[in-house]
Amino acid sequence: MINLIEENNFISELTKQFERSPFQFNKLHESDAEIIDAPFNTDYKIAITTDTIAEEIELGIYDDPYLIGWMIVMVNLSDLAAVGASPMGIVISELIPKSYSQKELIKLQQGISDACNICNTFVLGGDTNYSKILVLSGAALGIIKEKPLSRIGCKVGDLLYSSGKIGTGNTFALTKILNGKRINYNYKPTARLKESQILLKFATACMDTSDGIFSTLDQLMRLNNFGFELNCNWESALDNKAKNILKKLSLPSWFLLAGQHGEFELIFTISKEQDLIFKNKAESINWNPEFLGFVIMEPKIKVPLYSKIINIDTEKIRNLPLKNKLDIKNYLKALTNLDEEFKKPA
Amino acid sequence: MINLIEENNFISELTKQFERSPFQFNKLHESDAEIIDAPFNTDYKIAITTDTIAEEIELGIYDDPYLIGWMIVMVNLSDLAAVGASPMGIVISELIPKSYSQKELIKLQQGISDACNICNTFVLGGDTNYSKILVLSGAALGIIKEKPLSRIGCKVGDLLYSSGKIGTGNTFALTKILNGKRINYNYKPTARLKESQILLKFATACMDTSDGIFSTLDQLMRLNNFGFELNCNWESALDNKAKNILKKLSLPSWFLLAGQHGEFELIFTISKEQDLIFKNKAESINWNPEFLGFVIMEPKIKVPLYSKIINIDTEKIRNLPLKNKLDIKNYLKALTNLDEEFKKPA
Repeated sequence: MINLIEENNFISELTKQFERSPFQFNKLHESDAEIIDAPFNTDYKIAITTDTIAEEIELGIYDDPYLIGWMIVMVNLSDLAAVGASPMGIVISELIPKSYSQKELIKLQQGISDACNICNTFVLGGDTNYSKILVLSGAALGIIKEKPLSRIGCKVGDLLYSSGKIGTGNTFALTKILNGKRINYNYKPTARLKESQILLKFATACMDTSDGIFSTLDQLMRLNNFGFELNCNWESALDNKAKNILKKLSLPSWFLLAGQHGEFELIFTISKEQDLIFKNKAESINWNPEFLGFVIMEPKIKVPLYSKIINIDTEKIRNLPLKNKLDIKNYLKALTNLDEEFKKPA
Repeated sequence: MINLIEENNFISELTKQFERSPFQFNKLHESDAEIIDAPFNTDYKIAITTDTIAEEIELGIYDDPYLIGWMIVMVNLSDLAAVGASPMGIVISELIPKSYSQKELIKLQQGISDACNICNTFVLGGDTNYSKILVLSGAALGIIKEKPLSRIGCKVGDLLYSSGKIGTGNTFALTKILNGKRINYNYKPTARLKESQILLKFATACMDTSDGIFSTLDQLMRLNNFGFELNCNWESALDNKAKNILKKLSLPSWFLLAGQHGEFELIFTISKEQDLIFKNKAESINWNPEFLGFVIMEPKIKVPLYSKIINIDTEKIRNLPLKNKLDIKNYLKALTNLDEEFKKPA
C-alpha cells in the first residue's frame, strides 16, 4: 500500500540494493529522521536526517537568501522534532552560483545563523562548492533519551492535532508563483522542538507536515492502516491570513491541505484518556495545538466539505506533482477539477 | 596565515556569524570531520562530516554514475578516517536530473551500495530532489573512543608518510579532461578506515588528501607552523601508471602533487621514536605506507626537483583554481610557467 505513492515507490526502488544497518532502529518510510542505537553503552539514541532545498529555489518559491538560509536549518530540525530528538547541530553543504553576490551570501548565512540561534543549536561544519545553481543540503544530528516518536502507533478514536496553524506553506508558495501583484505573505516556520519534547510522553503517532497536510495524513494512513476524519470545524485550524488570501484568489480553502509545500508543523495523535493531561501540559508552555479530528477504522481521509463528508483521493493528489513534472499550474487545475466533483450534489 | 588561502578565508568569512557549539571538540580548519562531545556520559566522541560532489561532475571528471555513487561514500568516509572515527553510516541527498535514465540511476545506487559494503557501513537515509543537474551530498556519522586524530601536533623531525601511492586522483582528472584518445586510467579510492585505527595510536598529525598533496601539506604547514621537506626519492611514492601517463603527456611528475583532485589517502606524521613500532604494526595488516620526507622548522614546502631543493609557493598554487574560475587548462598553464622557473639554473 505504501508503494502506491510514487515518491514512496521511488525511494523503495532506490534503496532496495542497500543493506540495512543492524544499529538502525527505524524502518524505511516509518520515521522523519533516522534513529541509530549508539554502539556503546548509553540510554540515548542518535538521530540523523538530511534534507535539501533545490526544487523550491528552482520553482521561484524561495527567492530570498535569508529565507533559504533559515529554511535549510528548519527543514532538517523539523525532522528531528518529529522523532522527539534534541538537536546537537547541523552540517550544511552549499552549492553557490558563481554569480552570487557577497550581499546575498551574507543574507544566506544570516538566515542560517538566526535559525540556529532560535533553536538553540549550532552549525558544526559544512562544505562549499561552486555551481550553476543555488542548492543547500543539510544534515542534522540529535539525541533522544526516551522512545523516539514514530509515525506508527495511533489507535481508532485517538484525537488528531496539528502543532499550529496550517496552510501557511502552501499560501506562501501560491503567492510566489501565481501572484503578479505580489501579495505579501510572511512565511518563516520554526521547528517544533520544544513541543516535541512534550509529545514524547503523549503522542501515539507523529510526523511533520513538510509535504503538506494531505500528504502527511495519507502517509500516516498507509503506515497505520487506519484513516482520519477531520472535524467540521477544521477550517478554524487554517491560518487566518492564509484563508483570506485564498478567498481573494477565489480558491477553495481545502487547497491549503492539498498543496505539497508544507508548514513544518507536527501532525500527531493523542489517546482520549491522555487528552486532558496533554492539553494541560501544552497550556503550561503556552502552546495551543489545533484540534483537527479523529483516527477512524476505515483507511480513508475524510473531510467535511460542502455539507458532505468527502473521501479525499489522497493517492491521486500525492501522485500529481510527479505526473505533472512539478508544474504547479497543472496541479491547481487538477485540484479545481476535483473541487467541481465535490460540489456536485450527492 | 591560514586565511591567506582563499578557500580558508572564504570559509572563515562564511562562518564568522556562527556561534560555535560548546560541545564541539575541534576548531575551524583544524579537522577533516567535526568532533562532538556527546552530551551524555560516555567515553566516545561523535564525528560528523559533509561533502558534496558537484564540481567534478560539472567539469566532466566524474561521468560514470557508478563512480559518482562510489565517491560520495568515499569522500565522506575518508574525512572520518582522517580523524580516526569508525563509521556508523551515511545519509545521502541526491539531486537527480529529470533526464537521468533508470539504468544510470541503478548504477549510481550500486556504486553507493558497493562502497558502503567494502567499508562495512550503511546508508541510513536520504533525500531525493529533481533538478537540472546531478549533485550528490553526503553526511557521514562516526564514533571515536580515543583522542581523535588532528591536523595539529607534528614536531620537527617527525617522519612524513602517505597511506598509499599518490597522484592517482590528479592523473584521473587529467585523463578525463585533456585526453581525446581516452587513456584508460582506473580510479576507485577506498577510505583508509582500517589504517586510521592504527594511526590513532601513532600519528602526531593527520589529514586526508582530498584536495591533493600540496594543498594538504600547505594546510598542515599553516596549522602547525612547521614545514615539510620531501625526500629525494619522493617520486617512488607516485603511482606507477600515473607516472607513465604524465611522461606520455610530457608533463613533469610534480604536477601530480600540485593538482587539486586528490587521491583520498591520508598524509600523516610519526615521531622518530615511534617509527619502528609503527612500521611493524602497519606490516601486521599488510599495509605499506609511503615514506615522503620530514617535518622541518621553516614553514615551507620543499621538494627536490631538477637537482635542487625547491621552495614551492603553495599559497600561489592553492589560490589558482579560484583565480582561474576552475579552468583546468589555465591551471596547467600556470603550473607550466612555474616549472620553467624551477628548471632555470640557480
